[in-house]
Amino acid sequence: MRVRHKPWAKGKLDQHSDIVIQSPKEYSGEWRDLFKRDAPLHVEIGSGKGSFITGMAKKYPTINFIGIELHESVIVTALDHCLDENLKNVRLINEDARGLTEFFAEDEVDALYLNFCDPWPKKRHEKRRLTYSAFLAQYEYVLKKGGILNFKTDNQGLFEYSLESFSKYGFVLQNISLDLHHSGMQNNVVTEYEEKFSEKGQRIYRCEAISSE
Amino acid sequence: MRVRHKPWAKGKLDQHSDIVIQSPKEYSGEWRDLFKRDAPLHVEIGSGKGSFITGMAKKYPTINFIGIELHESVIVTALDHCLDENLKNVRLINEDARGLTEFFAEDEVDALYLNFCDPWPKKRHEKRRLTYSAFLAQYEYVLKKGGILNFKTDNQGLFEYSLESFSKYGFVLQNISLDLHHSGMQNNVVTEYEEKFSEKGQRIYRCEAISSE
Repeated sequence: MRVRHKPWAKGKLDQHSDIVIQSPKEYSGEWRDLFKRDAPLHVEIGSGKGSFITGMAKKYPTINFIGIELHESVIVTALDHCLDENLKNVRLINEDARGLTEFFAEDEVDALYLNFCDPWPKKRHEKRRLTYSAFLAQYEYVLKKGGILNFKTDNQGLFEYSLESFSKYGFVLQNISLDLHHSGMQNNVVTEYEEKFSEKGQRIYRCEAISSE
Repeated sequence: MRVRHKPWAKGKLDQHSDIVIQSPKEYSGEWRDLFKRDAPLHVEIGSGKGSFITGMAKKYPTINFIGIELHESVIVTALDHCLDENLKNVRLINEDARGLTEFFAEDEVDALYLNFCDPWPKKRHEKRRLTYSAFLAQYEYVLKKGGILNFKTDNQGLFEYSLESFSKYGFVLQNISLDLHHSGMQNNVVTEYEEKFSEKGQRIYRCEAISSE
């Protein structure tokens, strides 16, 4: 993602530490306490400007959402959405998502969302793809048994790779769509990228991978 | 498939009982003896006019191939290919492929091919799709452990369904292509349907499902 640097972003994130959680590791296993309710916990990896996570939060008020995004200059827009809409069921983590297993306890998460991650098309960069087996191990750790990893991409090669990677790892696939925006799917909340790509006529691919452990 | 009736087909098939095997159940567990060599055994379910199976047989002379096709008026063309090309590594079975587990013993088959089968798009016809779980159970029975079910279709809905069905059943997916004819795939042997569909610009979908039992 090309990101315009916003030198003021860090200060704004710090000001809203009720939404942008400063020491997420401290809440591992206790996120439901932070939200002050025993609701399902859904986590987005790489939330960008937050269109998806805040759209989901509005659509599903009985679910607790957490968005993880590394870039300050981007997550600050997600924060704005939360403030503007006064959303009570979203928290944000301004960290690298590779810390996932430190932020969440085993089996703590009901669903993960991975939307339009970097395809890293070169074979030698396979290990950087967020659907590489080492990442799947992290997802499986934090997901409860039967928990769902929701995956969307516009990249055909990444989707082919990811289906194989999920399958090989032992996730069970369901609700596969090879052309989401022409599938009659209800309730799809779009990301910023998704809107742009779909407008260009590109296919959006989607699937759900169920954790079996 | 629309099939022109050929009243003479049955007689021709009977004349060539060295190629079109009359009592396939008798060879269950003993197909390698029939071919007089201990080579891998690959079976196509629904061979149609035989372009694929005979193309494969020419390309891979060290493999034994068997094509199953119910319709006499179609399989007779496959027979013609075998005769014209004097292929020694192909046999044909003029029966309903639902007899698969009677024709082949447990673990006897190294690879299956399922090409462009009827998509049966209506939900209430799910059980007729050749990738429905009851059929997968048959494939798994005849396939040896690690054996591969090779699947091609031009039908997006059937492909989505089939990926999920394979995954749910416990097959592991590999070599998924969501646009086979633009994937740079080498060594693809096309079927009659595939040529026609691809010329129309339709995507061809392909995957391999590995039997784990």
